[in-house]
Amino acid sequence: MSTLPTGGKVAVFSAGSWGTAFSVVLADAGNDVTLWARRPEVAEAIAERRENPDYLPGVELPPSVTATADVEEALRGADVVVLATPSQSLRENLTAWAPHIERDAVLVSLMKGVELGTQDRMSEVIGQVTGAGPERIAVISGPNLAKEIARREPAASVVACADEDVAQVLQQRCHTAAFRPYTSTDVLGCELGGAYKNVVALSVGMAVGLGFGDNTTASVITRGLAETARLAMKLGANPLTLMGLAGLGDLVATCSSPLSRNRTFGEKLGQGMSTEEIYASTKQVAEGAKSCSSLLALAERTGVDAPIAQHVDAVVAGRMTAKQMMEAFIARDTKSEIY
Amino acid sequence: MSTLPTGGKVAVFSAGSWGTAFSVVLADAGNDVTLWARRPEVAEAIAERRENPDYLPGVELPPSVTATADVEEALRGADVVVLATPSQSLRENLTAWAPHIERDAVLVSLMKGVELGTQDRMSEVIGQVTGAGPERIAVISGPNLAKEIARREPAASVVACADEDVAQVLQQRCHTAAFRPYTSTDVLGCELGGAYKNVVALSVGMAVGLGFGDNTTASVITRGLAETARLAMKLGANPLTLMGLAGLGDLVATCSSPLSRNRTFGEKLGQGMSTEEIYASTKQVAEGAKSCSSLLALAERTGVDAPIAQHVDAVVAGRMTAKQMMEAFIARDTKSEIY
Repeated sequence: MSTLPTGGKVAVFSAGSWGTAFSVVLADAGNDVTLWARRPEVAEAIAERRENPDYLPGVELPPSVTATADVEEALRGADVVVLATPSQSLRENLTAWAPHIERDAVLVSLMKGVELGTQDRMSEVIGQVTGAGPERIAVISGPNLAKEIARREPAASVVACADEDVAQVLQQRCHTAAFRPYTSTDVLGCELGGAYKNVVALSVGMAVGLGFGDNTTASVITRGLAETARLAMKLGANPLTLMGLAGLGDLVATCSSPLSRNRTFGEKLGQGMSTEEIYASTKQVAEGAKSCSSLLALAERTGVDAPIAQHVDAVVAGRMTAKQMMEAFIARDTKSEIY
Repeated sequence: MSTLPTGGKVAVFSAGSWGTAFSVVLADAGNDVTLWARRPEVAEAIAERRENPDYLPGVELPPSVTATADVEEALRGADVVVLATPSQSLRENLTAWAPHIERDAVLVSLMKGVELGTQDRMSEVIGQVTGAGPERIAVISGPNLAKEIARREPAASVVACADEDVAQVLQQRCHTAAFRPYTSTDVLGCELGGAYKNVVALSVGMAVGLGFGDNTTASVITRGLAETARLAMKLGANPLTLMGLAGLGDLVATCSSPLSRNRTFGEKLGQGMSTEEIYASTKQVAEGAKSCSSLLALAERTGVDAPIAQHVDAVVAGRMTAKQMMEAFIARDTKSEIY
């Protein structure tokens, strides 16, 4: 049985849009939440104005959400630590935070990326840096656009941990009238679904930016999920995870939403902007633009055909235009659908 | 080997929006197409104006598409007969047409419904009425919004026939630069995917009509596809068909598109209109509003849990409001996702 209490303090790192929105869920579910912000002025703004003006303006934060820029203060007494930083900076950040994390705290990843260079998933990075075993590492993933969650619109999600008991306690600790978590033990499937959907959303965005309609985007989504499932199953995931909320659900929400950063990034590529031009025009991170090359490397290492990751990687790196990518997508030979 | 020639005359019944759009595909692929219209004035309008003013205005029909209201003339010499009528009137119509169909003609269903009363799929109705064996009955289904197809926007689709050789010949006969058919032998999976997606689109429309966002609609789509796959697999379909273009692909295109009749019908239900009020305000058919009770009966007969079909059927019949349906959808107990 898990020793994780059914209520207590949760530390959330850090105060981006999803971290802040999930703090609202945690507070609504009865936890005391400490939201860590890198910049003291953000922590002060949250304390004074009860909102996060940079990443979630207009959403009033409940009284049980407090903010701090002090790592030790944030982590002291927290039995759950929620990690929501950009994927590529997790290892460096967590290395600095790890000495202050409570001994038995459960570490929960909200991140959707794969590390460049190592091709490690976020749960793997967490284990390596903190020494925590799989029974102390969890992932929460699903069709969860941050702004809708913050507005308390109904949504479902998956809480995955190798230890089913821990998943069930975490489920209780983030279950509200609007947010409905389901448990799973397939951490790998949830993480790959979450990371790959950003890459697929980039390609859907490119199709939209080039003026293609719903038939084309639906075909991209279909082949994108098939590609995700091929890789995830090869690595040991349950195929039903990919057909579920953390696979199909998250993919469809991201690809449908004008709020999605990855889809928006893809639209700009489709309209002819370069990656550098897009980075210069926005401060938000499109995880898929980084993870596409890690996922491609992972696919190559395991011998899985991954044409979408391959093409997105080429477009992001400027070796191919979005138009050429879509032409290649459309021009594949006709054949049997299931081969 | 199939005796179906790789080119020749195709008869299309009848001149609704999808039948007319698919005639454009067939003409582009090199067939002589005769489009049958019930009303002589529609056939005349097509002949004179080279467009179908009622169902596909603004799309110029290629010269190799001719139109007639004469059944015998339409069917004479046609080695492929494409059926695109409302599902619930197929049996009656086909009974009248059958004596004029050429002996070895292949019958292709574009229809996406299940017959009320019998719970027969369209391919089953075709077999019963014409006596054709499975090697002469095919289904074409995928993310194929008619207006986008008619504008020659790129789209993929599935051509399914129990006889793989026939599927391959049909594939050639509708393959164009914009329309890319893949072959399959899973007629059942394609038909159930097509019929069920209309029911799921109704429930997505209801959520949209009630003001829910992308997280909620993505959850409805996810659970809708799971429900479809449960029933289809129980009846013998290949699960990969449901994850493919005729399952997920068609579902996502329909649920994303403001062009979708079923989604639009659902939106009106979500806004509080009754089924009778909606029928009074439009001349187009929402297949899902009919097929939901056939699919529910099919699920009950085979012992499959089908909450979405059940609730959509109750809302369409006026026994439940769309609001009550969405509350029931959201309020289900938290549990393990895969049970």
